[in-house]
Amino acid sequence: LDYQHVQVPFEITLWIMLASLAKIGFHLYNKLPSVVPESCLLIFVGLIMGGIIYGLNDKSPPVMDSDIFFFYLLPPIVLDAGYFMPSRPFFENIGTILLYAVVGTIWNVFGIGFSLYGICQVKAFRLQDVSLLHNLLFGSLIAAVDPVAVLAVFEEIHVNEKLHILVFGESLLNDAVTVVLYKLFRSFCEMPAIKSVDVFAGVGKFFVVALGGVLVGLTFGMTAAFTTRFTKDIRVIEPLFVFLYSYLSYLTAEMFHLSGIMAIVACAMGMKRYVEANISLKSHTTIKYFMKMWSSVSETLIFIFLGVSTIGENHEWNWPYICFTVIFCLIWRALGVLVLTFFVNRFHVNTITSKDQFIIAYGGLRGAICFSLVFLLPDFHRKKLFIAATTVVILFTVFVQGMTIRPLVDLLAVKRKRESAPTVGEQIHIRFLDHLLAGIEDISGHWGQYYWKDKLEYFNSKYLQKILLREYDQPKSSIVLLYEKLERKHAIELAEAGQLARAPSHPSLLCSGFLCSNNDRTVITDKKLEDTLNLDVLENIQEILARNLYRIRRTGPAYNRHTLPGESEPVGHAKEILILRHKNL
Amino acid sequence: LDYQHVQVPFEITLWIMLASLAKIGFHLYNKLPSVVPESCLLIFVGLIMGGIIYGLNDKSPPVMDSDIFFFYLLPPIVLDAGYFMPSRPFFENIGTILLYAVVGTIWNVFGIGFSLYGICQVKAFRLQDVSLLHNLLFGSLIAAVDPVAVLAVFEEIHVNEKLHILVFGESLLNDAVTVVLYKLFRSFCEMPAIKSVDVFAGVGKFFVVALGGVLVGLTFGMTAAFTTRFTKDIRVIEPLFVFLYSYLSYLTAEMFHLSGIMAIVACAMGMKRYVEANISLKSHTTIKYFMKMWSSVSETLIFIFLGVSTIGENHEWNWPYICFTVIFCLIWRALGVLVLTFFVNRFHVNTITSKDQFIIAYGGLRGAICFSLVFLLPDFHRKKLFIAATTVVILFTVFVQGMTIRPLVDLLAVKRKRESAPTVGEQIHIRFLDHLLAGIEDISGHWGQYYWKDKLEYFNSKYLQKILLREYDQPKSSIVLLYEKLERKHAIELAEAGQLARAPSHPSLLCSGFLCSNNDRTVITDKKLEDTLNLDVLENIQEILARNLYRIRRTGPAYNRHTLPGESEPVGHAKEILILRHKNL
Repeated sequence: LDYQHVQVPFEITLWIMLASLAKIGFHLYNKLPSVVPESCLLIFVGLIMGGIIYGLNDKSPPVMDSDIFFFYLLPPIVLDAGYFMPSRPFFENIGTILLYAVVGTIWNVFGIGFSLYGICQVKAFRLQDVSLLHNLLFGSLIAAVDPVAVLAVFEEIHVNEKLHILVFGESLLNDAVTVVLYKLFRSFCEMPAIKSVDVFAGVGKFFVVALGGVLVGLTFGMTAAFTTRFTKDIRVIEPLFVFLYSYLSYLTAEMFHLSGIMAIVACAMGMKRYVEANISLKSHTTIKYFMKMWSSVSETLIFIFLGVSTIGENHEWNWPYICFTVIFCLIWRALGVLVLTFFVNRFHVNTITSKDQFIIAYGGLRGAICFSLVFLLPDFHRKKLFIAATTVVILFTVFVQGMTIRPLVDLLAVKRKRESAPTVGEQIHIRFLDHLLAGIEDISGHWGQYYWKDKLEYFNSKYLQKILLREYDQPKSSIVLLYEKLERKHAIELAEAGQLARAPSHPSLLCSGFLCSNNDRTVITDKKLEDTLNLDVLENIQEILARNLYRIRRTGPAYNRHTLPGESEPVGHAKEILILRHKNL
Repeated sequence: LDYQHVQVPFEITLWIMLASLAKIGFHLYNKLPSVVPESCLLIFVGLIMGGIIYGLNDKSPPVMDSDIFFFYLLPPIVLDAGYFMPSRPFFENIGTILLYAVVGTIWNVFGIGFSLYGICQVKAFRLQDVSLLHNLLFGSLIAAVDPVAVLAVFEEIHVNEKLHILVFGESLLNDAVTVVLYKLFRSFCEMPAIKSVDVFAGVGKFFVVALGGVLVGLTFGMTAAFTTRFTKDIRVIEPLFVFLYSYLSYLTAEMFHLSGIMAIVACAMGMKRYVEANISLKSHTTIKYFMKMWSSVSETLIFIFLGVSTIGENHEWNWPYICFTVIFCLIWRALGVLVLTFFVNRFHVNTITSKDQFIIAYGGLRGAICFSLVFLLPDFHRKKLFIAATTVVILFTVFVQGMTIRPLVDLLAVKRKRESAPTVGEQIHIRFLDHLLAGIEDISGHWGQYYWKDKLEYFNSKYLQKILLREYDQPKSSIVLLYEKLERKHAIELAEAGQLARAPSHPSLLCSGFLCSNNDRTVITDKKLEDTLNLDVLENIQEILARNLYRIRRTGPAYNRHTLPGESEPVGHAKEILILRHKNL
């Protein structure tokens, strides 16, 4: 037996195996995950594991290494988050998200830092040796909402898309603020005197860290897209480039002390569109699947390690400080959301309701990033107190807030996410409305989001696509892609079961969409439209319409005494469609 | 800039990136890979890289670490090889493969070892200090054919399946012999005196190492299959288990000094069938794709590192010893193949032709395993000579043999692999023949391979499937699966293009197969058949036949003056099939 030799890979594999088996275990009992979020269960498993290790070895179990966390566990999750980020709601709400992420986080850092400093002045608590700077440093690491924890909880409660993107986008974009403030306060702690220049340098640094991260990410993203132009003959390594380039962007950003999270998100969002057009369908499935798998395993490992690391003798239990930390975290976040939302609502038509505000404030979960940052603190005599406070805040937010948020969402009847994919008709509608609004903005001279989006699209189709896409003269519109996807799904269903019975509810939606868009098209025939929806796309749409016209003709009256909706002779219907569709053989 | 901090992951990512970009680069120029095998090009890239590093640093570039090779680069390749191993030809030729792998390798080891010892006795070469044991040790590491090198070359030359499996199977299964002989001679070198007991212990150890490896692999494979029974609710981590369990089997085998390669091959071959039945189609695509991607990157890295490691000052250039090593490697392998094949051909109907024998002997490529083993040798004064000799043998086999084998295959007109997948008809035929032969073997009392296969199938369906499969009462026959696959492909083609024009050549094959099998079925209706092809499968087949009977009816006369074969009204044909198929809506 030679365990020493294989120890490192063996133990890594065993940890991953434990994580995967734990996931399977939870899902075997359906009732458990519907009440308790998976993150809580995993931390619980970690606590038990930590207890066992502590009991057997009689010393503290190993804590999660910050390097392992930042280099190997965090990137897959952020990559997955960035790659599957719904870009439309994200960019529609980018102003609000940035306000929450930047101003909100700064507000929280200083709020928590100063009020904890106030608590430290109370003599009964014996905390007078904790300086204001240390409190602010602690505030900077505890203030930031954690993307991993937010994702784990919000993916299970299915709130509406806007609410989700507000909380989740904030948790991603606050990384730059956290990095800058954390490093600033840490260097202030080590400096003998602080000049006002340093403070201004800090403000300047924020822009460098944030914009530098985005720039690094976009550069690597474009390179990745460009590389996939040439993979036609070796499809099998296509998925690799997506992973390699995004990881490189993260590492490069970290190397230059920029925001790695913003880099990887920018990289993923930037390359997605072009990469997807270049690679094969199977590569695409592999990327999607593997990203999900990897981030899911990373997430599981993070929560288990959080549990394991909690056990042991790293903590100094000064309860007043810890309790007030939890309370201030809650209060300052609630206040911040209220104040910021007040300003946001003054400038928007779609206001954020008070229910939504409550969920945004309540969904500010803390997680493994705080935990890793607190361990990275330089050694000083109150570090163990900070570790204890961070641990309690994380456990409180994940367990108490994480477990109660679902019942609260139900209770408040918060608007839920729509479950079905958009139909082709809806997509065409949205597209037309966008062009219309861009035209109105152009005429009225208002440079709003539609105007910029339109300009960006123009730049994209004029230059970027020609460089980055393999067949740049035939970029497929998202409408055509969606239609093809629905068609393919339908065809596979046909082949697998020989059944068409379940289909009718869907096509009717599709048809009505087509019908309307057909009418719209006759009205809106300006130059702008033809520019963006170029000839190929129009041809594609016309072809789709022609193939589906049969269905439109056949869409019966809205009300009929004798048949239920969608039941009008599906057999003959399906048969005739099939014949029509293959008549042009 | 903080490079130190991100160095390890950054450099690993850059190496993988270099490997992937090199692969893309070769494929951009189509003519290059068709003349020079990719492995040669990659070694060449490695040589250049090594030269650059050597020139810049003025010291030897880092050699490939044996631990990295055995723990991280080799397993993905072997896993891929085992998972996609065509099990039928492998088990049909298992006797021959084992003979080549065990007796052949021992023959080579002793042949090369003793003859090199003979060369060492020539005074002019100044090699008298190399003992017999050291020569045998060297023989044990240089004798083994390398699976990575064999795969890289044989995947490009497309020889017939039997020839491929003979060379490739040998390269996989000789691992146990290599491990035992290498470790035996190495411990002999360190022992003061060798007793005859030790030699017998070596023989016993071979069985422990080989069978132990297989046992470990099968255990983990069955556990993996069992685990995938419970992944219905979390499809996304299904692919993970395949990778985790096979890697664990490899590490466990290495831990107990068993054959890791045999463990991972046994694990992959054992679990494949059950895992595939349990997991979803997308998980399956991901597994296939990722395995191919991973092994392809590993292989690329191995060849690049081989090139890099060649540059430097690790070598002692004693040309007589090196040249004779190359010559003896060639001679002893050729002799071994000739002698062993003589015996094999006496007991088989399907003999191995002399052309095939030549390719088997000539395809005995050496690769990275020898290279890693020679670096693992204990330090002694002639280690650098052995390193030099190993490097030259590897480069000679990969460059000279690897580059000439394709022209030789063309020149000798060696039988090639058939390119098309078997049709449903062929599959049914093969199945019926197997049952027939198993029945004949049973009646005649001969316990041949069909008898054992039949017994194994019985055991499988009676016990294993019930434990390992999620829906054990409906295990799909490979015929049904193939049909579904063809159907699905067809449906996607229909959906994507609305074309049926290219189909006719295929269905006719399918039909004739069905027609024959239909006739066969009326003749062979013994009990045995119904046992193995259980009711569900029969029902499935009947359904398929019923759905396709239209085509059979329509198969025109073999010769017709006015139409070309397969051109008889494809439009109406296709249309009617579609109607027929969906009539039962």
